[in-house]
Amino acid sequence: MNTFGTLFRLTTFGESHGAAIGGVVDGCPAGIALDLDFIKAELDRRRPGQSRLTTARKEGDRVEILSGVFEGQTTGQPIGFIVRNENQHSNDYDDLRDVFRPSHADYTYYMKYGVRDHRGGGRSSARETISRVVGGAIAKLCLRQQGIGIKAWTQQVGNIACDRDWSRLDLSLIETNAVRCPDPEVAQQMEDLILQVKGEGDTIGGIIAAVITGCPVGLGEPAFGKLHAQLGAAMLSINAAKGFEYGEGFAGVAQRGSEQNDILTPAGWLSNHSGGIQGGISNGQPIPFRVAFKPVATLLRPQQTIDIHGNVVTIHPRGRHDPCVLPRAVPIVEAMAAMVILDNFLQHTARTSKI
Amino acid sequence: MNTFGTLFRLTTFGESHGAAIGGVVDGCPAGIALDLDFIKAELDRRRPGQSRLTTARKEGDRVEILSGVFEGQTTGQPIGFIVRNENQHSNDYDDLRDVFRPSHADYTYYMKYGVRDHRGGGRSSARETISRVVGGAIAKLCLRQQGIGIKAWTQQVGNIACDRDWSRLDLSLIETNAVRCPDPEVAQQMEDLILQVKGEGDTIGGIIAAVITGCPVGLGEPAFGKLHAQLGAAMLSINAAKGFEYGEGFAGVAQRGSEQNDILTPAGWLSNHSGGIQGGISNGQPIPFRVAFKPVATLLRPQQTIDIHGNVVTIHPRGRHDPCVLPRAVPIVEAMAAMVILDNFLQHTARTSKI
Amino acid sequence: MNTFGTLFRLTTFGESHGAAIGGVVDGCPAGIALDLDFIKAELDRRRPGQSRLTTARKEGDRVEILSGVFEGQTTGQPIGFIVRNENQHSNDYDDLRDVFRPSHADYTYYMKYGVRDHRGGGRSSARETISRVVGGAIAKLCLRQQGIGIKAWTQQVGNIACDRDWSRLDLSLIETNAVRCPDPEVAQQMEDLILQVKGEGDTIGGIIAAVITGCPVGLGEPAFGKLHAQLGAAMLSINAAKGFEYGEGFAGVAQRGSEQNDILTPAGWLSNHSGGIQGGISNGQPIPFRVAFKPVATLLRPQQTIDIHGNVVTIHPRGRHDPCVLPRAVPIVEAMAAMVILDNFLQHTARTSKI
Amino acid sequence: MNTFGTLFRLTTFGESHGAAIGGVVDGCPAGIALDLDFIKAELDRRRPGQSRLTTARKEGDRVEILSGVFEGQTTGQPIGFIVRNENQHSNDYDDLRDVFRPSHADYTYYMKYGVRDHRGGGRSSARETISRVVGGAIAKLCLRQQGIGIKAWTQQVGNIACDRDWSRLDLSLIETNAVRCPDPEVAQQMEDLILQVKGEGDTIGGIIAAVITGCPVGLGEPAFGKLHAQLGAAMLSINAAKGFEYGEGFAGVAQRGSEQNDILTPAGWLSNHSGGIQGGISNGQPIPFRVAFKPVATLLRPQQTIDIHGNVVTIHPRGRHDPCVLPRAVPIVEAMAAMVILDNFLQHTARTSKI
Repeated sequence: MNTFGTLFRLTTFGESHGAAIGGVVDGCPAGIALDLDFIKAELDRRRPGQSRLTTARKEGDRVEILSGVFEGQTTGQPIGFIVRNENQHSNDYDDLRDVFRPSHADYTYYMKYGVRDHRGGGRSSARETISRVVGGAIAKLCLRQQGIGIKAWTQQVGNIACDRDWSRLDLSLIETNAVRCPDPEVAQQMEDLILQVKGEGDTIGGIIAAVITGCPVGLGEPAFGKLHAQLGAAMLSINAAKGFEYGEGFAGVAQRGSEQNDILTPAGWLSNHSGGIQGGISNGQPIPFRVAFKPVATLLRPQQTIDIHGNVVTIHPRGRHDPCVLPRAVPIVEAMAAMVILDNFLQHTARTSKI
Repeated sequence: MNTFGTLFRLTTFGESHGAAIGGVVDGCPAGIALDLDFIKAELDRRRPGQSRLTTARKEGDRVEILSGVFEGQTTGQPIGFIVRNENQHSNDYDDLRDVFRPSHADYTYYMKYGVRDHRGGGRSSARETISRVVGGAIAKLCLRQQGIGIKAWTQQVGNIACDRDWSRLDLSLIETNAVRCPDPEVAQQMEDLILQVKGEGDTIGGIIAAVITGCPVGLGEPAFGKLHAQLGAAMLSINAAKGFEYGEGFAGVAQRGSEQNDILTPAGWLSNHSGGIQGGISNGQPIPFRVAFKPVATLLRPQQTIDIHGNVVTIHPRGRHDPCVLPRAVPIVEAMAAMVILDNFLQHTARTSKI
Repeated sequence: MNTFGTLFRLTTFGESHGAAIGGVVDGCPAGIALDLDFIKAELDRRRPGQSRLTTARKEGDRVEILSGVFEGQTTGQPIGFIVRNENQHSNDYDDLRDVFRPSHADYTYYMKYGVRDHRGGGRSSARETISRVVGGAIAKLCLRQQGIGIKAWTQQVGNIACDRDWSRLDLSLIETNAVRCPDPEVAQQMEDLILQVKGEGDTIGGIIAAVITGCPVGLGEPAFGKLHAQLGAAMLSINAAKGFEYGEGFAGVAQRGSEQNDILTPAGWLSNHSGGIQGGISNGQPIPFRVAFKPVATLLRPQQTIDIHGNVVTIHPRGRHDPCVLPRAVPIVEAMAAMVILDNFLQHTARTSKI
Repeated sequence: MNTFGTLFRLTTFGESHGAAIGGVVDGCPAGIALDLDFIKAELDRRRPGQSRLTTARKEGDRVEILSGVFEGQTTGQPIGFIVRNENQHSNDYDDLRDVFRPSHADYTYYMKYGVRDHRGGGRSSARETISRVVGGAIAKLCLRQQGIGIKAWTQQVGNIACDRDWSRLDLSLIETNAVRCPDPEVAQQMEDLILQVKGEGDTIGGIIAAVITGCPVGLGEPAFGKLHAQLGAAMLSINAAKGFEYGEGFAGVAQRGSEQNDILTPAGWLSNHSGGIQGGISNGQPIPFRVAFKPVATLLRPQQTIDIHGNVVTIHPRGRHDPCVLPRAVPIVEAMAAMVILDNFLQHTARTSKI
């Protein structure tokens, strides 16, 4: 299933070393000024080679919008786009043609489809997320007009965490460091850890935190369409994601109801333990959530595995890979959240249609 | 959105104090012996009044199958079913007619729809999960023929946790105690805590763990249809769920790639840090996951809030409510997982159709 | 697939001789006064036994609304409903248990599912359309508030046709005769023909015409969601439907563009050859369409066929059957159209959401 | 809605005079040899400038496959593709920037979206069908392996019809003439008529007939997913389509049930009045259907209309346009049918999954 959403829908295609990555945004409202510089800036945040923390691959990642825009404005028609794959070193993968890299999707794709594009992980490569960032950027341009904002940051790398509540952080500092953590001191520690791990040819996981602000009351649907269920599905569909929580999340299970209930007063809510969603529907308060990412599977050290014939082989990866996906996953988390919120905004408009 | 699934689909309806809870299972394979006793037994696991840990409400929860079954076998046609609501004390809710109970869905439903059935939470009541248990029971009957099993249990209540890996637990003990924890000693501590909390008129959260065994290689889809994204959406759609993780989950973010990679050998996998899913597709290993549940919002003590006119009011709940949803949520977690796995099994069959 | 629609969705279940026919309406706007008498009246129009033209079966077809309504108003939650099957003569079908009736769905259902409920056609029975009439009645109640009207009538039975353009007919006469034709003289001829055919133990087909009035500009979507494509799919999903056309339809193919183009002037359109839809989107003019129905397959005379073992058998139907479905199909056509229009009204609201 | 299908899905994008037309085919089975020459040949059948019957526009319509194919084989991943727009004379449309051309989608798109790409009809242009032909060609390559064939032809232009039953026609002659009619004599009359109409600056409609052969028993679903309802929706979504019928269609309404019932014998069916579908499910016989197309709206003669300001204007089209869409619509009808059948083949595989 390569389509996401109900009324605002993103369909994506493309492999890591194929001709292009691309997608179709369907259901974008008409009359939105499509700020290409903004889309480009969002892609740059996801791009490899931004800092010494990320892979040295140089990918221009220039997006070409093919449709759905006329004289700078969206027309309500599907927005097709592509990003050509360039600067590929497909030969880096020749040795891996018949090999199942440990903890990659090689084995499962091969077993499911009987055929796979082995170069750079093919469809399972995180390069697919380029399309999500484009879709998310378009969604952000729509949400901006409603004053809805989405901010994500690297909250934890390995054991180094920035534990303060988001409301006590200066989120304007997120983009001031390579690791995208709003606490400069913690950011420095995270960077040190990533470089150390990189030096060991190893990788490390982490947690991205995010908050949606300005979300109106009423987004989300009963039963299966709860807003946080949609957000969770969106986040868990990102490569390497292993967990999702919102509000007090896992930590909150140890609390009593009397500690967690949010009291409503004539002046508004006294707290936000609910995380901005009650009964699956937004209540107008900020929506904080967190996404856990495992350490990436590609190590720059030898690993043993088997090939498709069942032979034991040792792999020596030569590709250019990130020791930690967190910094580059920040814009992807934002993009997925933006699409979920816009989709639900449109659905909510229909649900409350005056008929 | 009250429909769940792609090829195996459950549509649900019904409010807590309306005429009936019910649903439609569409896409169930034909020729399955529909074991009504099994469905009844699953509903009994969800039923209130099973023990002193749960509300004293006595709900028969008798399911009536209305279609899709002929001479005991499914026909491939939609299976309509209802469970009549009985033994309701709707008057218990008269005082709450215009009141927004703290951390319930009262405020968000009212703001979204402009009208709500205030009795027992209406559509937002967990009584809606009856339909999920029926759908899940039907899915389990299908999966059973493939040797696919799903077991869930209460892993944590408040701070009392049963932390051992599932492979070291005797899951046959789950149903031997009221709290549904496979470790009898921990179960006893959980029960004590729940009764203590109940005595205080308070509530407590917890974590349900689960494992899917016997799942074949290949279930799940690339990009947005990753198997764990579907599982996550399913779990997060359950009332009071605040988080989902699978495999090493949140804890795993602190590890290195070299610690988490699963090595494949001619004799099989050497570990299962991936949690049975790689690239969104099952790899044939067990799939362990966890779901966080907040403490329920209804306290048996006075709470302050406002009504729809903005007046401050104090509520004194008189309904019959659980101090902890965990024991009764166990079969619901299993039901949602069963539907996800069956749906993906059917999709996988189509994907690998010989054409 | 037993669900119809995108935002306003009807899911149906039930077999002819099972416990009940029913369904779930999801996505109905909140705050609509649910006029049960109107729903009942719509069902009465579909009911058998209304006149000597239709089967003598007496089916009360009393609908029970199970959810989604509170104090007479819709709440925005799913509306579950059932109609119990009564007065069944299931024994009439005992002889047909293993027999494939000619031109029925017996053979195809059996071959597809390997099992079937043979009683009265099971799921393939037109009794399934009860749920459509309920869903359509609810949709009509919504559309009524917008001044959108839908009228259908029997335009042709066998070779007896009422060929005048709808604008020259007095549609208030439709319900004044048993055949539901607004031209009383033609209606009489149709009735005579149906009774003659009935007397011969045979059946006859016909055409239902319909017109949607008051439809605002803008309903429908580009490419695959064209309004007439959705209407066509809706109509063709009705039992025994063999064709759909709108505007000038099949007859219009012989015309020149210069004859068919509708000219727009400051005072409005000069003609409506387009049938109220241009580029798949409504243009504010009335939408006339027609649906062809074949003669029903059940004859009250012996027919030869084979059974599931391949043996030749002769069947002597004893059930109570209509010689012509047209009169009772009129409300079904209206119901399907109402659901399509409402669904598109809601989608259109989202599409033109001010963001 | 720019996505079509359930398991085999086509998403399309692109305007007539934008950068490119394209799409994404999702759910294509893996391991299919993707014959690019065949796709090219199918596009050539749709291409303008094939003969003096069609517009003189020279469009190369070269498709570029961007993903989903590895070493010539489909991988089960989404197949992205684009066809660059070339040889556009966008200036031909400058005069029409603010004008609503009669019976085009100009008015409805403008009213719905408040903005439109006026060049060549923008998104409402039939150039969008390029993507359908690509999707259909891929579907045909899959179906070919199952022996399922789809043939369409021009059955009627204006009043010139080729009325013989398809079984008495030599369908191998379809591609031997510019009008794509299997009867060479009728084809000549059609061509004469089209050239005459063209000479008059006018346009003419017609009917395309088609037949699906080799379709296995069991495709299609009960209730709303009837195979012919899906086929009808597919056909009616093609530009200028006004009607759809299958089997005996509209003409069959005048017959008796005793004339139309298909008798099943140990040796097979004695007739095929049902049109290969019973109860919405294929019965293994050929599926014949017909699609009515109106005369295209663009005339090469002056026409009066209004502009967006309500002023009366006279338009003098200078674009290059077809006097009759029928010859070029033949491959589009086939493409849509191929996608419907493949999608249902895949669904049927899931429905009859052995579980």
